Amino acid sequence: MKTDLQIAQENVMEPISKIVEKAHIDPKYVEYYGSTKAKINNDLMQELQDKKDGKLILVTAINPTKAGEGKSTTTVGLVDGLSLIGKNVMGCLREPSLGPVFGLKGGATGGGYAQVVPMEDINLHFTGDMHAITTTNNLVSAVLDNSIYQGNELNIDPTKVIWKRCLDMNDRTLRSITIAQDKPTNGVERKDSFCITVATEVMAVLCLSKDLKDFEERINRCIVAYTYDDQPVTIKDLKVGGALAVVMKEAIKPNLVQTLQKTPVLIHGGPFANIAHGCNSVIATKMALKLADYVVTEAGFGADLGAEKFLDIKCRVAELKPNAIVVVATIRALKLHGGVSADELGNENVEAMLKGIENLEKHIDTVKQFGVPILVAINKFTKDTDAEVAALEKWCEEKGVLVSLSDAWAKGGEGTIDLAKKVVACCDEESHYAPIYDVNDSIENKVLTITQKVYGGKGVVFSDEAKVQIEKLKQLGFEHLPICMAKTPMSLTDDPKIMGRPSGFDIHVNEVKVSAGAGFIVVFTGSIMTMPGLPKVPAALGMGVDENGDSYGIF
Amino acid sequence: MKTDLQIAQENVMEPISKIVEKAHIDPKYVEYYGSTKAKINNDLMQELQDKKDGKLILVTAINPTKAGEGKSTTTVGLVDGLSLIGKNVMGCLREPSLGPVFGLKGGATGGGYAQVVPMEDINLHFTGDMHAITTTNNLVSAVLDNSIYQGNELNIDPTKVIWKRCLDMNDRTLRSITIAQDKPTNGVERKDSFCITVATEVMAVLCLSKDLKDFEERINRCIVAYTYDDQPVTIKDLKVGGALAVVMKEAIKPNLVQTLQKTPVLIHGGPFANIAHGCNSVIATKMALKLADYVVTEAGFGADLGAEKFLDIKCRVAELKPNAIVVVATIRALKLHGGVSADELGNENVEAMLKGIENLEKHIDTVKQFGVPILVAINKFTKDTDAEVAALEKWCEEKGVLVSLSDAWAKGGEGTIDLAKKVVACCDEESHYAPIYDVNDSIENKVLTITQKVYGGKGVVFSDEAKVQIEKLKQLGFEHLPICMAKTPMSLTDDPKIMGRPSGFDIHVNEVKVSAGAGFIVVFTGSIMTMPGLPKVPAALGMGVDENGDSYGIF
Repeated sequence: MKTDLQIAQENVMEPISKIVEKAHIDPKYVEYYGSTKAKINNDLMQELQDKKDGKLILVTAINPTKAGEGKSTTTVGLVDGLSLIGKNVMGCLREPSLGPVFGLKGGATGGGYAQVVPMEDINLHFTGDMHAITTTNNLVSAVLDNSIYQGNELNIDPTKVIWKRCLDMNDRTLRSITIAQDKPTNGVERKDSFCITVATEVMAVLCLSKDLKDFEERINRCIVAYTYDDQPVTIKDLKVGGALAVVMKEAIKPNLVQTLQKTPVLIHGGPFANIAHGCNSVIATKMALKLADYVVTEAGFGADLGAEKFLDIKCRVAELKPNAIVVVATIRALKLHGGVSADELGNENVEAMLKGIENLEKHIDTVKQFGVPILVAINKFTKDTDAEVAALEKWCEEKGVLVSLSDAWAKGGEGTIDLAKKVVACCDEESHYAPIYDVNDSIENKVLTITQKVYGGKGVVFSDEAKVQIEKLKQLGFEHLPICMAKTPMSLTDDPKIMGRPSGFDIHVNEVKVSAGAGFIVVFTGSIMTMPGLPKVPAALGMGVDENGDSYGIF
Repeated sequence: MKTDLQIAQENVMEPISKIVEKAHIDPKYVEYYGSTKAKINNDLMQELQDKKDGKLILVTAINPTKAGEGKSTTTVGLVDGLSLIGKNVMGCLREPSLGPVFGLKGGATGGGYAQVVPMEDINLHFTGDMHAITTTNNLVSAVLDNSIYQGNELNIDPTKVIWKRCLDMNDRTLRSITIAQDKPTNGVERKDSFCITVATEVMAVLCLSKDLKDFEERINRCIVAYTYDDQPVTIKDLKVGGALAVVMKEAIKPNLVQTLQKTPVLIHGGPFANIAHGCNSVIATKMALKLADYVVTEAGFGADLGAEKFLDIKCRVAELKPNAIVVVATIRALKLHGGVSADELGNENVEAMLKGIENLEKHIDTVKQFGVPILVAINKFTKDTDAEVAALEKWCEEKGVLVSLSDAWAKGGEGTIDLAKKVVACCDEESHYAPIYDVNDSIENKVLTITQKVYGGKGVVFSDEAKVQIEKLKQLGFEHLPICMAKTPMSLTDDPKIMGRPSGFDIHVNEVKVSAGAGFIVVFTGSIMTMPGLPKVPAALGMGVDENGDSYGIF
């Protein structure tokens, strides 16, 4: 069987100038990065401002399991399916982080015959956006620590620095470190921490900004530390916002690439879906909506995290109105939710699947509360049996939800024609989209609303520390920002081991902090890892470049 | 007076495709990065292998002072001057590091009307080479620490890890840190250190590699740590060399840009000139020599460091034969070497200049020992007086050295016509280039030869630690590698405060280590800073993007 990389390498891409043409983009707004990638200048939007927006389709999923749900594969396949049925369509995806590529899972650009290309470039340096974010983030840290060292005019308490350094690398040893040791000229010693680049507030800010000016204004609002008398210190106080805009000047522009079937896709920004909102940039989504009649995008993790934040944070901030939501499920994952052990997933088990379906049901119910038309995509795996598929389809019909068997991985767009047609049907219905909570409600009530309506839980238990933090945020005037829940993606609860559709549970909040630049309040339930580690045998160990100059081993 | 950035922004660049044409590069080897930058595939070299090499001209300088010598400005000006007198010429320069751009000095792409453009891009992310090097370096660290954490099969002693992490940032607080604290799952706690990206061995390896295959072979030889029984652990042992080649696949290709006067320039690689060899990549230099009749390149710091290493390391390894060497001096710097204080440099002082000229004289004598035709370029400053210039010119004539007053900064190529003609005359002479020491000599003797012939010193004092290290390197079979001296650039001695042309001094070696991938032995004299800090008011604080989308403040 061919690897994703082999399939991608065997594919002959269109020159990106042809994709520019196909997307009806005036070449004057295009900056080419080689012959297969391009950045699109946001000035294009002025020209298109009177054009009507296309339909916006979100692809989300059930709670992810070890079995894999294939959300990106389905998304890319759907883009190609819509193109095949004659629609003017554009995909809008997140940029992969380099770190995980060398760690466990290889690339993040779809799979099989539903991929975006050049797969290798997109998974590695691409057009340098991740590197620009890393530089931006670490320039703040360098200037901040330098300010403390050079007289500390801002009266920063070194034990209250909250801005972390970052690397786009899975490196567990940088999670907890001590800096500025040994010599006074090395700065003021303090505890510090690196996160992975995609977990930085810079990434979240990039993805919620309207343009570079808005980016600079937002980044200036970011809180980096507190003073000895507990007052927030912002990037504006450090006077480095202008330099950060210089560093991000190119990274603010969306990147145009293509699917294996030559359909245009914008890839731009990729924040974590726990401590941040988990979807690609507002700039890219808005641009795609002006350029295409149908825009397919995705959000990280399951619908309880990614879709909720897409709907409550991104759509609210960017004034977007989604027209349809696709919930991806696999027979395998539903069986896992139904209690089957991982090594028995290959055996037919309709009963377990029907039990596990409660997880899918919850997400369907959740999405319905947002008022957006919904459908289910069954992402086909080779070992799925006819009986299992039939049972799932029957359940959906009884539930009154459109369902489609998607074979994007094996067949690309040809495998999603039925899905594409049903998506178009959904988009023809009226969307009654509304966020699930009132942003002017109290922080406690907003978290309670999400817990009850989205997770299906009962109550929220705030730690004493969280209560103090909430009080502080109220005093600082941040009470009326949207909520960004940092919760395990593996369960509807805050305990990753609880599968299916639990009820009657409480959510435990242990920390609450503001991402003032991104413009949301991050609510932590349990400990959230913002710097992954490498496994015993990292994926990097299998990579290389062959005699022909082609890479191998990027899955 | 206009800033360098303003001059660069007012300039209208040729599309880089025109520069490709001018340089006679077949477009099939070109990968465009926007409309003003391109990467050139090394496969081009196969096609040109039978073509005769052009003439190679090195620009070096006296010992640098606070006054600034303008080596890059003179280099770029000379490239344009040679073009103006009708020569087929190409420049070959080092890539600037991002760190210093935000620190003290702003950009590093020449100055005034002798600049390479796009100035802003080149000084920032350019085509991503620095970021690729950062990623490569830190992937090694992550895999190394992961190997220790996941069972330590290689028996690595965590106190004997010598491979540092890096960032392309001036960040003093990362000079001395402790990693992997607080939790066992964060890895094995140990002391660590970050250097700036340009100070990594990855950068040195890139710059000495013939191609990607050679890069992989060299990087595999790098020593990253020692075992508990003191045996070297290499990157090959970590099994990550292939992945590093994947990461460096694009960065290995030289970057083509242009001067303000549209002359082609390759910019590629930029290692430190103390702990590494301080000149651009072998790949770029060899490519330029096939493409042009005259290639002008430069080396870091003064002739005692940059030129010595260019001649003893780079030319030896790459089998290059330089045809002429330009030593840049300024009246101001010579006055500083002659004992004038920094605040009196504006006053005419022929006597002090003639005293300080002994520093220039030493570098002239040094270069002559390598057998390469030489000439002196006086880089003109506005406050130089006629009497001072005349005295310097007279001294050169008496010494029998060609001299030219260069006004590259104010006039670009027009200001270096005379210099260009004299460089051509030099190139018409025969070069008797030979390295200054026999690589098969002992480490001690090689260091002594450099000390006596290049620095004009008497002897070498090795610390007890250095003696042990030399013994170890002999045992490991590294004795017959070239020497890379890590010495202050400010003085011919190892004491930065001693100006002029001292004699009778000893060089004090406190540490000796091997860069096994780069293929040289680094000999440390005094403490060498590999991670700069930010000044009290970093340059970043004056930077921004204006309403038109143009950057300002990058000097």
